[in-house]
Amino acid sequence: MAELYEQLNPPPRLLMGPGPVNADPRVLQAMSMPLLGQFDPDFTGYMNQVMELYRGVFQTANHWSFVVNGTARAGIEAILTSIITPGDRVLVPVAGRFGQLLCEIAERCRAEVHIIERPWGEVFPADQVEDAIVAHDPKLVAVVHGDTSTTMAQPLADIGKACRRHDRLLYADATATLGGMDFPVDAWNIDAASAGLQKCLSGPPGSAPITINERVAEVVLRRKHIEQGIRPEGFNPGDGEMIQSNYFDLPMLMDYWSESRLNHHTEATSALYAARECARVVLAEGLAARIARHERAGRALSAGIEAMGLRLFGDTRHKMHNVTGIEVPDGIDAAAVIRAMLDDFAIEIGTSFGPMRGRVWRIGTMGHNARKDAVTNTLAALEVTLRRSGYAAPAGAGVDAALAVFGDS
Amino acid sequence: MAELYEQLNPPPRLLMGPGPVNADPRVLQAMSMPLLGQFDPDFTGYMNQVMELYRGVFQTANHWSFVVNGTARAGIEAILTSIITPGDRVLVPVAGRFGQLLCEIAERCRAEVHIIERPWGEVFPADQVEDAIVAHDPKLVAVVHGDTSTTMAQPLADIGKACRRHDRLLYADATATLGGMDFPVDAWNIDAASAGLQKCLSGPPGSAPITINERVAEVVLRRKHIEQGIRPEGFNPGDGEMIQSNYFDLPMLMDYWSESRLNHHTEATSALYAARECARVVLAEGLAARIARHERAGRALSAGIEAMGLRLFGDTRHKMHNVTGIEVPDGIDAAAVIRAMLDDFAIEIGTSFGPMRGRVWRIGTMGHNARKDAVTNTLAALEVTLRRSGYAAPAGAGVDAALAVFGDS
Repeated sequence: MAELYEQLNPPPRLLMGPGPVNADPRVLQAMSMPLLGQFDPDFTGYMNQVMELYRGVFQTANHWSFVVNGTARAGIEAILTSIITPGDRVLVPVAGRFGQLLCEIAERCRAEVHIIERPWGEVFPADQVEDAIVAHDPKLVAVVHGDTSTTMAQPLADIGKACRRHDRLLYADATATLGGMDFPVDAWNIDAASAGLQKCLSGPPGSAPITINERVAEVVLRRKHIEQGIRPEGFNPGDGEMIQSNYFDLPMLMDYWSESRLNHHTEATSALYAARECARVVLAEGLAARIARHERAGRALSAGIEAMGLRLFGDTRHKMHNVTGIEVPDGIDAAAVIRAMLDDFAIEIGTSFGPMRGRVWRIGTMGHNARKDAVTNTLAALEVTLRRSGYAAPAGAGVDAALAVFGDS
Repeated sequence: MAELYEQLNPPPRLLMGPGPVNADPRVLQAMSMPLLGQFDPDFTGYMNQVMELYRGVFQTANHWSFVVNGTARAGIEAILTSIITPGDRVLVPVAGRFGQLLCEIAERCRAEVHIIERPWGEVFPADQVEDAIVAHDPKLVAVVHGDTSTTMAQPLADIGKACRRHDRLLYADATATLGGMDFPVDAWNIDAASAGLQKCLSGPPGSAPITINERVAEVVLRRKHIEQGIRPEGFNPGDGEMIQSNYFDLPMLMDYWSESRLNHHTEATSALYAARECARVVLAEGLAARIARHERAGRALSAGIEAMGLRLFGDTRHKMHNVTGIEVPDGIDAAAVIRAMLDDFAIEIGTSFGPMRGRVWRIGTMGHNARKDAVTNTLAALEVTLRRSGYAAPAGAGVDAALAVFGDS
C-alpha cells in the first residue's frame, strides 16, 4: 500500500446524508490551532467557556454543561450508565433505531427496561408515555428527540410535564437536532440531554455535548468515587453503587470540569476547540435564526422532493427540520442511486436502517449545509440521477419548488 | 464573558510536561482537512490504512489494530471491559498511578482483582509476576509499560514469556511509550495493547490506538452482539455474557472496522485523520530512528538535570526515554517553579500525583518535542527559574551537558 505514506487528501464532497455533514470551515480551522496543556489556565479557561457556550446552545441554566470525549453515543452512555443502578426501571419509547439504541445501552447498565413502541414514521402522544409511566413506575424515561433513522421529531414539552408531574427523570437524546431545531432543555423540563457535533452543529464527530440539572447531579453524586492516587485524605465515597464505567463516570467528569480539576482523562484538546467553535458559530448566528434557516432548508428540500413526484416518509407533521426521508419509487435501486450521486456529483445522501434499508433515502440539510445552494445542487443532481435510473421527474420542477421556498423564484 | 465570542487564540507554549505535548504541525494540518461520510469508500479506505499503519507502529501482524474514539483510557477500558467477564481474576502489578488505574477499571468490570505492589520508582522483576500468576491464577495480567506518574518503564519481554508459558492473557498499556520506546507487541507476546496520541505520537489527545491478537479476539467474540435494527436475520449472539458497555464493545467495533461496516458509532473523522498522520509521520521517520531520537533527547535532558546538581527520581536503570522525573530540592516550592516556567518562558513542565505531588517535577521530551532546542530552552529556563527561587545551579552547566549528549559541544 504505497498510499499509506501519501499525504491525506480527502476528495471534495457535499455531505447531504444524515451526518456527518460538512464541518463549518471555521471549525476545521479551529482544530488546527496549537495544543495547550490540560491544566494550563488558558485551557481551563476555554473549558469554562465551553460550559457557558453550551448552556446557551441547550437553552439551560444547568451548571453541568460540558463535553464528553467520544462520539454522540458516548454522551448517551455517560448519562445512562451514571444514572442507572442495576435493577432500576427505565421506560423507553421506541419508534426507530435510536430508540432501540437507548434500550440497548440501558440493558447493558442492567436496567429493567420497559419499552413502548410505535411504527417507524410515527411519534408518541404524551399521554401514551404518561400511561406507561403509571404502569411501569420507571426511575427514568429515556427518549430520542429527532430519530434520524425515521426523520421524525418527537414532541417533548408535554412528556417533560408528565415526567415532572410524576417526579421521574427525563433524558432526551438531541444528537440530531441540537442547533437545528428548538430544544429548550429547561422550558421542556428535560433533566439530562446529550448531542453530537456532526449534525446541526456542523463539527466533526468525536465530541458529545451534555447537560444535566441538579436533580440528576444529586442522583449521580451519590455514586461519587475518586481514583486512588488523586484521592484527597478523608474522602468518603457516596453510598450508591459504583458506576460501572470509569471513562463515563459523570461525578469524576464533574470533578475534572470543576475548579478542583481532579485528573481523569486528558481532555481532547482539538475536539474541545472544535466544540467551542461550533457553539460560538451557533450563538453568533443566533439560535432562533439558525433554527429558522434549518426549517427553511428542510422545507425547500421537501418541496423539491414532492415536486419531483416523490413521497416523503412518515408523519410529515412531525418531520425533523433537518433530515428528510424519501420513499424509494418502485423499481428503483436505492443503493445504485446513492452510488451514482457520489460518483457523478460528489454528493452524499443515505438510506436508513433495518426495515427502511433500501426503501428510504435520507437527505440531511444540516449545519453549514442548511443553505440554498446545497439544496438546489442536491435536487438537480438527484433529478438527473433518477432519470438515468428510470424515474423521470418533471424537468426542473424540484429546483423550482425549492427556490420558491427560498423566495428567489 | 465577552471572550466567549472571540476567535480561539491559544497562546504559544512549549509543552514539556508529561503530555499532551505539542502536536506535530503536520498532524494539526491534517485535522483541518474536510470531512468525509463514514461509509464513503475514500473514508473506509483511510480506516483500512489506519489499521495497516498501526500494525507498523505496534510492530504486530495483528489484523485487529485500529483506534477507539476517546482518550487513552477509552482504549484501556474497551479492552478490559471486553475481555473481563464479572468474576474473572485479573492480576495487576502496581507501582504508580496508572497501575492503580488499571485496577480501578478492572474492578468496575467486576473482576476479582489481585494486586502486587512495589514502591513508586521501581519496576517488577518478571519472576515476581510469574509467582503471582501461579498464586492467583488470573485470566488476564494487566500492566503499564511506561507509567508516567513515576517515569519508570516496566520491562515486558520476560513477563510476556511467563504469561505465554502459563497460557494467560497479557494486556499492556503503552499510552506513554508507543512511538518513543521500543514496544514490539508480537515479539514480547503481548496479547492486547492500547495507547494515546498525545505523547510520543505527537498528536492531540482523543484517539486511542489499540491492537489485539487472535487469542483475545477469540475471547471477546464469544460475547458478540449486534444491535437491533442492524442485526442480520438469523444472527446468533455469542454464548458469553454481554459486554457491559455499548460504546466499548470490541466485537461491535470489529464489525465496524471490518468489510461488513456494521454501523456503531460514527467514526470521529478528524481524529482519524490525526491518528493516520501521527502514524504516517512515525513510520516515515522510521521507528528505530524515532526511538533513538527519544532516547537521546531524554538522555540529554537527564544529563543537564544532573549537571545542575539535581537528582533524578527512581531507579534510573529503568527510566523511560521520554519522561524525566526530578526530585524537588529541599526548600523549593515545586508549584511556584512550574508557574514561573509557564509565566516567564511559556514552557510547561509538570509535577506528579499522590505521594509524589510537589516532590517531583516531570519533564517530557516526546514526539515533536524530543529535539535539541526544546531540551536546551527548557534547561536554560529552568536554571534561571531555580536561581530566582533560591536554588543556584552552576551557570550554563545544564545546557552544556545536554549539548554534549547531542554532540554539538
